[in-house]
Amino acid sequence: MSIDVLGIDHIGIAVKDLPQAIKTYRDTLGLRIVGREKLDSRGLEVCFIDAGQSRLELLGETRTPTEISKFLETRGEGIHHICLRVGDIEDAVQRLVTQGAQVIGEGIQEGAHRSRVAFIHPKSTHGVLLELVEQTHHQEQDDES
Amino acid sequence: MSIDVLGIDHIGIAVKDLPQAIKTYRDTLGLRIVGREKLDSRGLEVCFIDAGQSRLELLGETRTPTEISKFLETRGEGIHHICLRVGDIEDAVQRLVTQGAQVIGEGIQEGAHRSRVAFIHPKSTHGVLLELVEQTHHQEQDDES
Repeated sequence: MSIDVLGIDHIGIAVKDLPQAIKTYRDTLGLRIVGREKLDSRGLEVCFIDAGQSRLELLGETRTPTEISKFLETRGEGIHHICLRVGDIEDAVQRLVTQGAQVIGEGIQEGAHRSRVAFIHPKSTHGVLLELVEQTHHQEQDDES
Repeated sequence: MSIDVLGIDHIGIAVKDLPQAIKTYRDTLGLRIVGREKLDSRGLEVCFIDAGQSRLELLGETRTPTEISKFLETRGEGIHHICLRVGDIEDAVQRLVTQGAQVIGEGIQEGAHRSRVAFIHPKSTHGVLLELVEQTHHQEQDDES
């Protein structure tokens, strides 16, 4: 039985200077910015870039340390995680745990806009921090507005 | 003027042992394998994993050195590059060069299945090796067959 993957929700890119990165992605690369949001509780600010049915998510810090500090220190700027959109996150996480994959922290957590998310440790994925998200119908409406 | 990004074509993931990685992604993570191909001229074998309208691309070496050897040595297994699908690669690359982005090698090259591809250097993207691909109609038919 396979996990029901609907698509790539976003790719997280950790950057040291968010305004500078936004300038690069918008002005030099010619990509389209579709949102920007401060996540105060995590010390992050994120900027979303249009990629068809997916998005690139530039992640910058508004204080340190944050969940991306160690990554930036040891690896520098670059691709931080992949987020896959799944149909049923309960089912996906249960399957992963049963198969021995390492789910980070408390398992399924509340994400932005009433989504539910879970993170799989890079040890279980050949080096990829993998986020799963199940979006609510309400969120999809928000995104389209 | 923005580049016309149609979506994320694939995310390349460099791995040390392709058969083992396929086992992990298929059996432990429960994802669906949709193709496997040897790229003899590049010393690589790739395995494609379904992600809705996108794919994950596991990249393993069949000899060394290859274009992913340095990455594997210095950073270990993990996300190697992002490939964005664009409507007009000539237009996109011309725009990038004009804006000062560093296009790798000879610019637009022939990719798999008569696609055309170009690579943007991580120095121009805050650490992301960015591939652009313009697919031909013929390729889309191949993929669906």
